[in-house]
Amino acid sequence: MKSDTRLQVIFDTDPGIDDAMALFLLARHPAIHLRAITTVFGNASLAVTTRNAQALCGLYGLPPEQVLVAAGAAGPLQAGAEREHSTHVHGEDGLGGEAQRAIDARSALHPLDPRPAYQLICDLVNAQPGQITLIAVGPMTNLAQALRHDPGIAAKVRQVIVMGGAFGIQGRSGNVTPVAEANMINDPEAADIVFGAEWPVVIVGLDVTQAVVMDEDYLAGLQGRGGAVGDFLWHATRHYQDFYHSVDGIRGIYSHDASAIAYAVVPEAFELRAGPVRVALEGIARGQTIQKLRPPGPVADAWTGCPAQQVCIAVDSARVLALFDQVFDA
Amino acid sequence: MKSDTRLQVIFDTDPGIDDAMALFLLARHPAIHLRAITTVFGNASLAVTTRNAQALCGLYGLPPEQVLVAAGAAGPLQAGAEREHSTHVHGEDGLGGEAQRAIDARSALHPLDPRPAYQLICDLVNAQPGQITLIAVGPMTNLAQALRHDPGIAAKVRQVIVMGGAFGIQGRSGNVTPVAEANMINDPEAADIVFGAEWPVVIVGLDVTQAVVMDEDYLAGLQGRGGAVGDFLWHATRHYQDFYHSVDGIRGIYSHDASAIAYAVVPEAFELRAGPVRVALEGIARGQTIQKLRPPGPVADAWTGCPAQQVCIAVDSARVLALFDQVFDA
Repeated sequence: MKSDTRLQVIFDTDPGIDDAMALFLLARHPAIHLRAITTVFGNASLAVTTRNAQALCGLYGLPPEQVLVAAGAAGPLQAGAEREHSTHVHGEDGLGGEAQRAIDARSALHPLDPRPAYQLICDLVNAQPGQITLIAVGPMTNLAQALRHDPGIAAKVRQVIVMGGAFGIQGRSGNVTPVAEANMINDPEAADIVFGAEWPVVIVGLDVTQAVVMDEDYLAGLQGRGGAVGDFLWHATRHYQDFYHSVDGIRGIYSHDASAIAYAVVPEAFELRAGPVRVALEGIARGQTIQKLRPPGPVADAWTGCPAQQVCIAVDSARVLALFDQVFDA
Repeated sequence: MKSDTRLQVIFDTDPGIDDAMALFLLARHPAIHLRAITTVFGNASLAVTTRNAQALCGLYGLPPEQVLVAAGAAGPLQAGAEREHSTHVHGEDGLGGEAQRAIDARSALHPLDPRPAYQLICDLVNAQPGQITLIAVGPMTNLAQALRHDPGIAAKVRQVIVMGGAFGIQGRSGNVTPVAEANMINDPEAADIVFGAEWPVVIVGLDVTQAVVMDEDYLAGLQGRGGAVGDFLWHATRHYQDFYHSVDGIRGIYSHDASAIAYAVVPEAFELRAGPVRVALEGIARGQTIQKLRPPGPVADAWTGCPAQQVCIAVDSARVLALFDQVFDA
């Protein structure tokens, strides 16, 4: 029997338009074996993001017997730290008004696993120690809960790839506050736990995701491809594109979550920088990701004892953009 | 009678080796009329920085009847927020072991004005409304105390030039923590008051001061010039250079405080960026300067209502380095 050399992936997500694009790459890329989807609040409420994940499984043809879907956290770890969902970016239905199109694509919604997301994560990691790659593109709440539930999973996860944060490369800082990115500010406490755990984390932040712009021509070129998928992605990105045009003046969209998938399949397209990463929890910097670059000094500080994690500081944009062509043509 | 067209300057300082270099520029540059020096804790204790300011006045030939010297704050606004003085950078005597050389240069120490620094600042500003430029290169405590004592001075100051902070330009962030510069973390509450006041502030941060390196050849070239001054600056910078070599590997020193003087006399050598600036007061980001660049949105945030201040984001290094030649040759 031939062994499965593909990456075994759990996708933790809050669909979300760019989440939907990322999930399509995971569903179709030959180097990926998508094992489970775990949902979290963020771009919309947990009810909406979970329904969207189920609908997207149908649209992308992911069989229930192969890909488990489990609902996770409805809010951040810290009670009272809830923020508004990002429906002004992703639309009230989280998919730019196109959720019904995805739901209509199949007769029955993908079933939900009865386990909470953190439990499913722990179960799959423990069942295949050293094999699972966690790709997390929403608030880090489910991952932090899994670490709290079973700290032993840290040593058994192959790699954690996180879309989130911003490290000031090329002046790229926050997209919610001047220093905080959306996934981080939605649950800074959870992100700080995830980056501080003894597992290898690669952070794909705004520093690189904003360097990859899918312009309107690129998105228009998806139409009519992959059955209903290309049309869905084109229509779903209309609202999203309008949002980015209004705030940053670009005529296209940033490749946020898709860049995390790109790191999983073409890591050589990214340049990394090592150092411990903490998340600011208080005051005006709340949600900011801060990587310490100087070696540890004689005086202990907030980064002392934290593992060195990898932050993406440069990307070959063309390699990321080429992925959609590759999976549509596969 | 010819009117004095020179900049009327109060220099708020914590000498400090680079403060000593900056003060020399202020003492000798033909475009500057130095009215007063106010001292503050920071690079060393207030007792040491005040004694150094007095000694430097003697070394540089500043007459007591022309330049007032007043002692200011011995610690930050917030009780309990004291940090270690930066004697590991500037030496126990604040001048790289060369303070006695400066003291010995004159028989009597420059006298101290009996007023506290904040009172002297208020008095001079009120006596010449619209005329005084404040150049502050230590913790912002004296300026914040002056604003608290007499908020009306904000409208009467011509300009405030601050050496401090870091805004991530070219990856330049903190020099004490990963995000905090020394003057800012020594009194973040004071800095936040100064940047939030309705007076025009130009911030000369690490973004530009670390872009101007005085290398060993440059410093060696100061020897034998300006009477005892050139030799003093060469010897005083030996310890300081060793520090920067140990932390950043450069064979020279950054032009921190001298760059604030450079902004005062050759502002065209700097590129500015406008936007309200706040200082993080809490947690791991304490002391970080954060400028908001996006226009105000519909939702109020920590930057709402703060005046746009100017941050230096680029510098013509050669223009700054040329200043010492100019004043030595004057």
